[in-house]
Amino acid sequence: MAYTDFDIAIVGGSGPQGKGLAYRLARAGYRVVLGSRGAGRALEAATEISQLPGVLTQIGSAVNEEAVARAQTVLLAVPYEGHDELVRSLAGNLEGKTVISCVNPLGFDKQGPFGLDVAAGSAAEEAAGLVPGADVVGAFHHLSAPLLLDPEADLSHEDVLVCGDDASAKDRVMILAAAVTGGRAVDAGRLRLARQLEPLTALLISVNKRYKTRSGIALTGVRQPALEGSAA
Amino acid sequence: MAYTDFDIAIVGGSGPQGKGLAYRLARAGYRVVLGSRGAGRALEAATEISQLPGVLTQIGSAVNEEAVARAQTVLLAVPYEGHDELVRSLAGNLEGKTVISCVNPLGFDKQGPFGLDVAAGSAAEEAAGLVPGADVVGAFHHLSAPLLLDPEADLSHEDVLVCGDDASAKDRVMILAAAVTGGRAVDAGRLRLARQLEPLTALLISVNKRYKTRSGIALTGVRQPALEGSAA
Repeated sequence: MAYTDFDIAIVGGSGPQGKGLAYRLARAGYRVVLGSRGAGRALEAATEISQLPGVLTQIGSAVNEEAVARAQTVLLAVPYEGHDELVRSLAGNLEGKTVISCVNPLGFDKQGPFGLDVAAGSAAEEAAGLVPGADVVGAFHHLSAPLLLDPEADLSHEDVLVCGDDASAKDRVMILAAAVTGGRAVDAGRLRLARQLEPLTALLISVNKRYKTRSGIALTGVRQPALEGSAA
Repeated sequence: MAYTDFDIAIVGGSGPQGKGLAYRLARAGYRVVLGSRGAGRALEAATEISQLPGVLTQIGSAVNEEAVARAQTVLLAVPYEGHDELVRSLAGNLEGKTVISCVNPLGFDKQGPFGLDVAAGSAAEEAAGLVPGADVVGAFHHLSAPLLLDPEADLSHEDVLVCGDDASAKDRVMILAAAVTGGRAVDAGRLRLARQLEPLTALLISVNKRYKTRSGIALTGVRQPALEGSAA
């Protein structure tokens, strides 16, 4: 394993989801490096997050490719548009790493939001297909970016649903997820269930519009600690 | 509107989901008629439900076609296999009615449960396409049949996510849904969001297996009463 000076790199770290997750991870003590297409935008985002309450560690910044090279865990927090191309361009540096996808392939028309058809089934599976040597895990699809960025927002009642085919990578992501929300991560099963997790965001956006809120997901009936007996 | 002597007909009323929903509806005071392919099986199910605690009204039974004819609201609680054919066969009697679909097109293989590809997008949209004169509403996809049938099980912490394109039909179904769980119904948006609701059941089944439980869905952040300001 190459030397890496950050715990987690966030590709698309200057977008709202990337910044929000970076903030929560940094507040939990993780060393985070924000990647962006341009180093200037990444630095701007890192500076912004570094000034939020509770951030004790320095947030790094770099262009996406360099950010990825500097961490063993990489979070893809990018729009679905251009996802394929972006992942291809980073593939060399993603090999052998844990790659977390929170990418939501969504469309919008006059009826509102909807899930896009994805040839690979889901964005997470697309990434897994493009980088066969990475352990791709789906997570963080449903957390609201403004809530993540709000220092006062309590996210501990939301569940982070995590899917993946590699049990140990999934376990590591579940630990990260619990740190992000202060709540619970739930092992949702195999990676292909990202086909359900990703477009579910369309439903949450629809609910948000109707109820003028920022909704999230919780599962009822799940009482066991998440990390015991987890299996891919 | 023709004379109908029941409030709601349940097609597939001898299956676990149909029986469970029938029980909760009957316990809430709705007049329910169970339909099945054979009158004998329907009668058997109706007798079984009638003996459960809290059922104050007589449960009717009939073959599916006759059950449908006797109520203005029809719940489709059938397996996806044969759904198209069944809906076609009942189409004449479904015209002009509120048709609730809780049909989950699921497959199972060695990786576990998954959502089937449905040409119409979802079973609910398939039904809407086959019966253009009916108001199709998607609901009740995620309630566990054994819990519905358990007189002691409290379902009030689960949300029933309801989708549909006709606002008044959706409002009526949301009232039914709240009666079934004693909890909350959430207006999830347009009918096409059934594409998300239906296969989400695969994820719940996956969680159930991992956590040895019967999981359900709740949304966080939704505080407003469901029926105000509802729109299709």
